[in-house]
Amino acid sequence: VSRSRPYPVARLGIVGGGQLARMIVPEAARLGCETTVLDPTPESPGGVLAHRQLVGALDDAEALRALVEASDVTTFEIETVDTAILLELEAQGHRIVPSPSLLAVVQDKLLQKEKLHAAGIPTSPFQAVDAPDARTLADFGLPLVQKARRGGYDGRGVAVFKDVVVEERVLPVPSLVERFVDYRCELAVLVARGGGGEVRAWPAVEMVFDERANVLDLLLAPARIDAREAEEAHRVAVAAVEALDGVGVFGVELFLTRGGEVLVNEIAPRVHNSGHWTIEACRTNQFEQHVRAVVGLPLGEPLQHSAAAMVNLLGAEDAHGGVAIEGLDEALRQPGVAVHLYGKREVRPFRKMGHVTVTAEDRETAMALARAVSECVAIRGTEGA
Amino acid sequence: VSRSRPYPVARLGIVGGGQLARMIVPEAARLGCETTVLDPTPESPGGVLAHRQLVGALDDAEALRALVEASDVTTFEIETVDTAILLELEAQGHRIVPSPSLLAVVQDKLLQKEKLHAAGIPTSPFQAVDAPDARTLADFGLPLVQKARRGGYDGRGVAVFKDVVVEERVLPVPSLVERFVDYRCELAVLVARGGGGEVRAWPAVEMVFDERANVLDLLLAPARIDAREAEEAHRVAVAAVEALDGVGVFGVELFLTRGGEVLVNEIAPRVHNSGHWTIEACRTNQFEQHVRAVVGLPLGEPLQHSAAAMVNLLGAEDAHGGVAIEGLDEALRQPGVAVHLYGKREVRPFRKMGHVTVTAEDRETAMALARAVSECVAIRGTEGA
Repeated sequence: VSRSRPYPVARLGIVGGGQLARMIVPEAARLGCETTVLDPTPESPGGVLAHRQLVGALDDAEALRALVEASDVTTFEIETVDTAILLELEAQGHRIVPSPSLLAVVQDKLLQKEKLHAAGIPTSPFQAVDAPDARTLADFGLPLVQKARRGGYDGRGVAVFKDVVVEERVLPVPSLVERFVDYRCELAVLVARGGGGEVRAWPAVEMVFDERANVLDLLLAPARIDAREAEEAHRVAVAAVEALDGVGVFGVELFLTRGGEVLVNEIAPRVHNSGHWTIEACRTNQFEQHVRAVVGLPLGEPLQHSAAAMVNLLGAEDAHGGVAIEGLDEALRQPGVAVHLYGKREVRPFRKMGHVTVTAEDRETAMALARAVSECVAIRGTEGA
Repeated sequence: VSRSRPYPVARLGIVGGGQLARMIVPEAARLGCETTVLDPTPESPGGVLAHRQLVGALDDAEALRALVEASDVTTFEIETVDTAILLELEAQGHRIVPSPSLLAVVQDKLLQKEKLHAAGIPTSPFQAVDAPDARTLADFGLPLVQKARRGGYDGRGVAVFKDVVVEERVLPVPSLVERFVDYRCELAVLVARGGGGEVRAWPAVEMVFDERANVLDLLLAPARIDAREAEEAHRVAVAAVEALDGVGVFGVELFLTRGGEVLVNEIAPRVHNSGHWTIEACRTNQFEQHVRAVVGLPLGEPLQHSAAAMVNLLGAEDAHGGVAIEGLDEALRQPGVAVHLYGKREVRPFRKMGHVTVTAEDRETAMALARAVSECVAIRGTEGA
């Protein structure tokens, strides 16, 4: 039975106007959706492309209300949102996808882990620690990772103790501790799930750690793993998203242990840095797929048509002030190099300013070129050190 | 020598805010450019995504001046602009690419053809006719095509006379007449040329005419031609753009005659409907390439990684009022189907409302699926017939 869709197909609200919103907006437009972005910064990276931006804090009840009221469905590009307000808005009949109750679980790394564990998803052994000190951590046993239950992001809120627990490095906040995994490699699987339970996942990707300190970490797609490992990564990632009853795109970070086991590390309830490569290398990219899922359109085919490698473009370690991009022309001269700049007018040390995806016939070519680009491009500041 | 680029890399002005601007804007943003669109309709398809839209007519001197003054470089998504104003603005030091003098030549189909002919580019034999009547046309000989020198678009301003010249169908405007070409197929080659003369072209595509009246015309990439014909199409298209000293992306429409000769039909001095498929099927798409060319960045690799077929989504023949899209969900359920809706809130009979590109392993699969999608999707109006 054919269903008729109006124009706009949907009015889509996005909480957060950063680079993820910036990449969602054009895909939403292409599918006939009009977007409103909420972000505290006027002319935010996503806001300048969106149909309109509301300027407001992400924990401002009135701003969030204005966003959901202007939208048929509201989604997120950042998960650290006040879920109490969102639960109230949802209870009043507004569509918020993924659901605020899922967000509340995922925001708390302990609740997230307990939920996954209860569903039989393999994770590293863990334990709650309400008031962490060196003694409690030592009792759990080394090596371990301590994670703050809330507020961690991009490596913040995490402490690793391998041989000894140093009291000064213990995070003084409610936490979980988990066994440090001696992994062979870090993987990520992007999973999309529709409202009706339809699931699609892209091939597992590998986070390549580069020993040379001057080169950023690199993402490789597909990962250098065998077919059985790829299948297991797919199975575990999909099961994790199903355990959360998630709708939308989810970034599932995984460990592949030296024993060949796949463990879930963490789940991001949104489009994810580890899925940017899908724009250039897949039939359906993560941003389009997320829009399809949250708006209620059928999911697309995640088929990968080219090998890919991705590097982030971070602000140089001494960068401040306006943006000065070095090596852009050199990078663009290389075949298969796609540069994404996020439209941030100010640079700070290690701030995510953009990324580069390289597509090629094979993974090794893509990786070598991505490394070369990463060495040639620098985002410096006009104010210097 | 490494050159440092600021953010924004460039402020890009676009004359016209239709679907072509809508597809240029996100590519420009990705490359670090901020866009301003000029269009008479507020919230135009391109204007809603652009950083800002100026509302004004495309022949309004003050509006054009405001656009070029807000921009480091100004380009076009439509070629029917007042070139006198643009020539004046260019003389005052504003960068306008491609140049207004090129636009002035291309706008006049006779001047365009004379320029190509003078450069040795193969075209159908032609002749200027200042005051056309049946007698003058008959003297030129049949079969012929009469083309108005100015203002033709999407088939308007063209009259074909095969066996007899019917006086009432003669266009009463300054024209050229040219020998009707009994072609084997219609081809198009998209050519990009940078300011330094660097040239890249995508593989030739084929316009497939479908005898079944209910199916729209279809574009196939690459064209079903042999290697020698493809090489000749490439050579002729590149030579044509070089003859015009064009900078930017150009759509070169070609005839492949039954004798295997390649003739230039017409040139569009802008991104073109026949290049939409490059978004999903090529390393660098026409919109990104156009931005690179006009802003002065190195050109990208036009390599095609997937076979593709494209159909336009036109308003149904009795469609009026608001938009009702039938078959969207069915289309999106198919593998490799990318739907592009242009954000037009009102439908009219045969108005271009969007397009669909299908990518697949091979051309025949893509073509079959594009035909199926074209039969299943209909853009109707809420006001009916």
